[in-house]
Amino acid sequence: MSEPALDGLIEALRRLPGVGQKSAQRMAFHLLQHDRDGADRLARALLQATTSMRHCSRCHTFTQAEVCSTCADAGRDARLLCVVETPADQAALERSGSYRGQYFVLMGRLSPLDGIGVQALEARQLLDRAADGVVEEVILATGFTAEGEATAHALGEALRVRGLRVTRLARGVPAGSELEYVDLGTIAHALVDRR
Amino acid sequence: MSEPALDGLIEALRRLPGVGQKSAQRMAFHLLQHDRDGADRLARALLQATTSMRHCSRCHTFTQAEVCSTCADAGRDARLLCVVETPADQAALERSGSYRGQYFVLMGRLSPLDGIGVQALEARQLLDRAADGVVEEVILATGFTAEGEATAHALGEALRVRGLRVTRLARGVPAGSELEYVDLGTIAHALVDRR
Repeated sequence: MSEPALDGLIEALRRLPGVGQKSAQRMAFHLLQHDRDGADRLARALLQATTSMRHCSRCHTFTQAEVCSTCADAGRDARLLCVVETPADQAALERSGSYRGQYFVLMGRLSPLDGIGVQALEARQLLDRAADGVVEEVILATGFTAEGEATAHALGEALRVRGLRVTRLARGVPAGSELEYVDLGTIAHALVDRR
Repeated sequence: MSEPALDGLIEALRRLPGVGQKSAQRMAFHLLQHDRDGADRLARALLQATTSMRHCSRCHTFTQAEVCSTCADAGRDARLLCVVETPADQAALERSGSYRGQYFVLMGRLSPLDGIGVQALEARQLLDRAADGVVEEVILATGFTAEGEATAHALGEALRVRGLRVTRLARGVPAGSELEYVDLGTIAHALVDRR
């Protein structure tokens, strides 16, 4: 196969995260053979998204407006600011239905091995946002992975010296689980943080 | 998140084979956050491929020309026609460097459960192609899966009644393998087809 248009498509699909050579080939063949309408739709969606999506000036999530709908919602508690890694994390918190404050979306987390330090994150913008005089508590809801913990630690330090109350999501046994099947690190945390 | 451009992109990415909701979200966030150039390139590659790629009039593979480069190659043995499922299978045979005949690419295989019968495959075009008066032997190189075997069986029947010599790739122990680790079905085939 030395068809430039096909090779170009496979090469472009390979740049998607988690897609290798074989998956990219399969996707290209599928689109050309069975779903040309899907290919056109994807092309249009990509152009539409890259031209219209930008970052919310307050919480940094993706939005087509200057300020996203969550930040613009006057019914939310502006004294609470929840820091998450991605819009997907924010969506999970929203689905839980138990948070009515504002958000800040980091769009990433510390990852020193990939060269992502505090500077690469939107830490500066977060510190400005949290210092608006209304925010009283910043809830760090980054993941409980090594990188998520490091991110929470670094941001927590910087926020505390600015006199803000900083909290972290509770660690413990997940709802619906039997202790027998919960990993030991989680049990240890649940014991320490017992209440 | 209720951003139409973002939702549209996630929805379009979900149509790719093997991509679910979470992967599509991850891809969309990655493209918007870290690789807008990759998103533009993918959009252009999709439009380029869907507008320029069509099927070779002889072997049915994807090509930008009327006849693909393999079919146009006068140095290949026109008496041999090898039937494969996909361009990727064809590429694998080419890489083996042991075949110099022509190809026919089915762009699929029988899959009754998905409603893909012999009619849905390019069986008609294959039968016409094989009856050009030059082809003497048709090598069925569909996969050794249930669907691939069924495809080979159905096509083989139709080709044989037209007086063509029909062969199938040999089944047996893969190169470099130790018998101990070869599955029993393969060993049974290798015994029956011993030479």
